Amino acid sequence: MKMFMSDNNSGVHPKVMEAMLNVNSGHDYSYGNDNTTKEAINKIKEQLGADVDVYFVTTGTAANVIGLSGLLMPYEAVVCANTAHINVDECGALEKFSGAKILQIPTENGKICGEGVKSFLHSLGDEHQSQPRIISISQTTETGTLYSIEEIKELAEFAHENNMLLHIDGARIANAVVALDTTFKEMITDTGVDLLSFGGTKNGMMIGEAIVSLNKDLSKAFKFYRKQGMQLLSKMRFVSAQFVAYLSGDLWRENALNANNMGKYFASSLSGISGITLKSEPETNMIFAYMEKDLIKSLQKKFDFYVIDEETNLVRLVTSFDTNKEDIDKFIKFAKEIKGII
Amino acid sequence: MKMFMSDNNSGVHPKVMEAMLNVNSGHDYSYGNDNTTKEAINKIKEQLGADVDVYFVTTGTAANVIGLSGLLMPYEAVVCANTAHINVDECGALEKFSGAKILQIPTENGKICGEGVKSFLHSLGDEHQSQPRIISISQTTETGTLYSIEEIKELAEFAHENNMLLHIDGARIANAVVALDTTFKEMITDTGVDLLSFGGTKNGMMIGEAIVSLNKDLSKAFKFYRKQGMQLLSKMRFVSAQFVAYLSGDLWRENALNANNMGKYFASSLSGISGITLKSEPETNMIFAYMEKDLIKSLQKKFDFYVIDEETNLVRLVTSFDTNKEDIDKFIKFAKEIKGII
Amino acid sequence: MKMFMSDNNSGVHPKVMEAMLNVNSGHDYSYGNDNTTKEAINKIKEQLGADVDVYFVTTGTAANVIGLSGLLMPYEAVVCANTAHINVDECGALEKFSGAKILQIPTENGKICGEGVKSFLHSLGDEHQSQPRIISISQTTETGTLYSIEEIKELAEFAHENNMLLHIDGARIANAVVALDTTFKEMITDTGVDLLSFGGTKNGMMIGEAIVSLNKDLSKAFKFYRKQGMQLLSKMRFVSAQFVAYLSGDLWRENALNANNMGKYFASSLSGISGITLKSEPETNMIFAYMEKDLIKSLQKKFDFYVIDEETNLVRLVTSFDTNKEDIDKFIKFAKEIKGII
Amino acid sequence: MKMFMSDNNSGVHPKVMEAMLNVNSGHDYSYGNDNTTKEAINKIKEQLGADVDVYFVTTGTAANVIGLSGLLMPYEAVVCANTAHINVDECGALEKFSGAKILQIPTENGKICGEGVKSFLHSLGDEHQSQPRIISISQTTETGTLYSIEEIKELAEFAHENNMLLHIDGARIANAVVALDTTFKEMITDTGVDLLSFGGTKNGMMIGEAIVSLNKDLSKAFKFYRKQGMQLLSKMRFVSAQFVAYLSGDLWRENALNANNMGKYFASSLSGISGITLKSEPETNMIFAYMEKDLIKSLQKKFDFYVIDEETNLVRLVTSFDTNKEDIDKFIKFAKEIKGII
Repeated sequence: MKMFMSDNNSGVHPKVMEAMLNVNSGHDYSYGNDNTTKEAINKIKEQLGADVDVYFVTTGTAANVIGLSGLLMPYEAVVCANTAHINVDECGALEKFSGAKILQIPTENGKICGEGVKSFLHSLGDEHQSQPRIISISQTTETGTLYSIEEIKELAEFAHENNMLLHIDGARIANAVVALDTTFKEMITDTGVDLLSFGGTKNGMMIGEAIVSLNKDLSKAFKFYRKQGMQLLSKMRFVSAQFVAYLSGDLWRENALNANNMGKYFASSLSGISGITLKSEPETNMIFAYMEKDLIKSLQKKFDFYVIDEETNLVRLVTSFDTNKEDIDKFIKFAKEIKGII
Repeated sequence: MKMFMSDNNSGVHPKVMEAMLNVNSGHDYSYGNDNTTKEAINKIKEQLGADVDVYFVTTGTAANVIGLSGLLMPYEAVVCANTAHINVDECGALEKFSGAKILQIPTENGKICGEGVKSFLHSLGDEHQSQPRIISISQTTETGTLYSIEEIKELAEFAHENNMLLHIDGARIANAVVALDTTFKEMITDTGVDLLSFGGTKNGMMIGEAIVSLNKDLSKAFKFYRKQGMQLLSKMRFVSAQFVAYLSGDLWRENALNANNMGKYFASSLSGISGITLKSEPETNMIFAYMEKDLIKSLQKKFDFYVIDEETNLVRLVTSFDTNKEDIDKFIKFAKEIKGII
Repeated sequence: MKMFMSDNNSGVHPKVMEAMLNVNSGHDYSYGNDNTTKEAINKIKEQLGADVDVYFVTTGTAANVIGLSGLLMPYEAVVCANTAHINVDECGALEKFSGAKILQIPTENGKICGEGVKSFLHSLGDEHQSQPRIISISQTTETGTLYSIEEIKELAEFAHENNMLLHIDGARIANAVVALDTTFKEMITDTGVDLLSFGGTKNGMMIGEAIVSLNKDLSKAFKFYRKQGMQLLSKMRFVSAQFVAYLSGDLWRENALNANNMGKYFASSLSGISGITLKSEPETNMIFAYMEKDLIKSLQKKFDFYVIDEETNLVRLVTSFDTNKEDIDKFIKFAKEIKGII
Repeated sequence: MKMFMSDNNSGVHPKVMEAMLNVNSGHDYSYGNDNTTKEAINKIKEQLGADVDVYFVTTGTAANVIGLSGLLMPYEAVVCANTAHINVDECGALEKFSGAKILQIPTENGKICGEGVKSFLHSLGDEHQSQPRIISISQTTETGTLYSIEEIKELAEFAHENNMLLHIDGARIANAVVALDTTFKEMITDTGVDLLSFGGTKNGMMIGEAIVSLNKDLSKAFKFYRKQGMQLLSKMRFVSAQFVAYLSGDLWRENALNANNMGKYFASSLSGISGITLKSEPETNMIFAYMEKDLIKSLQKKFDFYVIDEETNLVRLVTSFDTNKEDIDKFIKFAKEIKGII
């Protein structure tokens, strides 16, 4: 049975798995000195249309924390939405590893703008205060919303005008690119993003996380941060092979497209049921909806999903690269049965 | 062509790969809340014959650093051989993550004993000095030697008598167990080891590293250390499945046995060649030998292996779970050709 | 000319200085092993009416950070007001040294309550989230307000009911004790506070900061934290002597009383001037007032004080242990001259 | 009675104390924005004959750790003697605050040279190994020896040729300058030292430690490190005033000269007593001597000094700026009485 807790309930796309099998013949250089890793890095360079620095790691938290730490001095700070994964879902890993501070902007929809960042741009040069250095946004955000290309561009410009850098936590970057019908290059390279946590795990990979630096001058020492950050895999080709498959023949796009489409289908299916109110139309593969408490209780006996807010009965339903209409129909059917609609 | 730089040049044993394929059906709980992970943990408990705490991670460095950090206060210290992986091959990850100090005992053969540790057991309770808290040894050591069961027992007793704990970096623990014709239980549990970095990557797994705490009172917070240490995998079942396969039907033993046997075969084959002198008989799958510089240069054009000491021309040759006699014979044949023996 | 930027513009009370002179005869044990230090610790125990652990340090930041770090694991968190000194004025020192996270409660008046803390008490035991462990409040707060004895007691109870601890940043603790006409014992010991940053520097000492732990079981290792935190003074008796003088014959009380009285006098003097509006009646020695921008500009040519908010023209005026009516009268006279009142 | 445990048993020179009294009139800017601090910084610039960066801190450990951390990335390393204060007497503060590693060179006399450092200059650019970045020496060393001007120059050259920097832990720098009959400028600036922990506490100051950077490009962010390192004093003028007095009219030189002379006097007085053997002639104010165990026991009943090595009965006797012949004569007389010489 498919789950709706998160897109990491899913497994691995067969083509990704096949690629891992294919590099499992004979011996190869370890720690990323193999050709598969070079090929994977080139695939990312192609997608971004730029000569970026790429470092594969094993978790999204590692991609965020090691990349950001590589750009931060301990007396500096990252400005982000209070809802950001680095702020609420990584057990303080950024503070621990970088020694730096997180400055949060309260937000309802998970998005921030230059105006919000500006509130922290006082006391520059004053050693009593952590110095804001990086703006970090999530695309797709943790609340399922999206920044437009224009908004990202504006944030990058704002950052650079203020001697700051722009980071994107791209745990669901493919879903965003597909939803906005654009390309990685247009969303990341052309907007002026400096650092990207390039995530593929949630979109059909097994372990698919990469630190991508678009400013090679600043990332010269990243390899040391990755090793000291305990993230240098010995048999790295098995991660690299996944990226090669993921970025070949539009697999990443097809997977994200399905997840997004299923998100829309799920939302439209839900909207007809009394006792369920969509918080908003889903932009990607995350549906947020208010449900009657009894309905939640009954549904959770059979289906897996999260209640985000016990007070308002807000639930989150996430579709995956392999979710299909039948999976959703079952959920809808059961909900309707409970409500006595069918 | 097989390589001899390290046993991590090898790939993944087909049975391990198959196990990964087998858990790739449908959805499952993430972050280790799945049944495969429970099963893998049970497999480790069985091997150790004890109700241990188990935390899967993705690198050997992570297993060492997160496990040790979980037991250390920042004002404490780990005592180890100067040759220890945590001391010379992990880019200072332990100091960075734990804040604690490494106290090194100079050693020729990679092994330490209570006497060596004792030299640091002064100034206890004096806040000017980092307080020794953990003895860390590697089994197999980085120089290819082994601790006997009795030696491990003595170190554990010494540790506990001095309010210390004993850690084993078991990146090559299977090779050691096989070489000493014993069991994980006899080597680890029965000797009184407190913490084990249980490595399988070098012995036929893809990503096979586990933190194993034999003292559950002390490891209650390890899950937080793993997450804050950026090592909590979302699709963990794909690592867990590897452990299940690795620890089923003696696969771990067969793999290690082959690597060790090939080590012996390699050594005996080398010993007949002029210009090559074994440093000592290999105890597991690492051969250390002195070679004439010209011979090294010629061999390295065709085969991959490390020169450990440029001054003494000491080389290291490592065999793997999948090394076979033909692989070694090719090396030997080429060496003999160079020397004009054949 | 007296300044009004902060009470640390002031110097050292003559009796404190004299005490330093008095211990400057001959040799004595270093690092706090001297009798003056023992005496100073006893003085603090007397004031608190409890067998507390005391560690002298050299800055208020050190008192906060080392004390809190001594009670925190890196995966835990401190909950405090967004205005807290540890959050906005210490350059991220707490995050850096402890590795832990700060969770902030938005506040207008610098005070927090159990209800605010409760918003962070979800996901307990879930390793994705930093675990709230300490509630930290400032008394006097950074905005000049005070917690009542009852409020502190309630926070301590709330903390203990939720497996948390209560810390007070007492950089201006004497001003608070005097303002509430109480004692250190009633405010700290009897309410159930676990950890106090006992500050005297702002109240007539030269270097007068102490970490005071009311829970000796939890502070056994504090001496290591102080040393590793670079705060173990060799000639400690010169700090200890200050505390002896400060806590003898009610010097601390007289100093704080004067500062508070001058605060009231300043406020009442200001309130008659057009163009100046008190934000609220001062509770201790900090006056917050809105002033016309032109008036601020003119006054700052002659007097030193901070503008807290450029947008609302909110200024802060702080009186000290040695501020007298003449100092204030000069300021008032000049303000009136500017306004053409005299 | 004078003590001989360390030169920090001593108090404060009257002129230093007087200077502190003299700045205790009225108010002044805090956190080092006062004129006394500017004057003190200028005094240090004069002594070094260079436009250095100066940051006052409160302990020698802080001077070492914050200065070194300001120049180190966490994946880098400091190379020093195994006897170095940063290695054995600071409770791991450097590892904790910088995240970097200490690489130790075994040494008998506390001194290191380029040859010793060279043993760590392999694997440069290889992320598995902490990258050596700073050579740190102590002058005077912890074993009482001295580097000649020429030796310092050679180490600085070696460092710079290898893309490294040279740091001096100058807790007893004045004793060294006096012993070698040179100047701070010749010993530090002209040799090419990059970073100096300028200590005065052991030579008649109360709190007299400064971080001195001779490479201003590299120390731009030091003020943030000091604040985040909890070492920014609010009433800094009272430390600065000490430096002004200490560096005016050769007070530093007179103090060190007396301590060194008393060291020589002590040594020559001891050398005539049977049962006492000098380890070597003292170069500054530290005498190392082997004493019969019974003699040690008897002497320690009346005099304070350290036994450095219980096995070899090696003791350390340290003279101070205020030690006089009578103090030493008493010790000698008592020793002779015990031995039945008088």
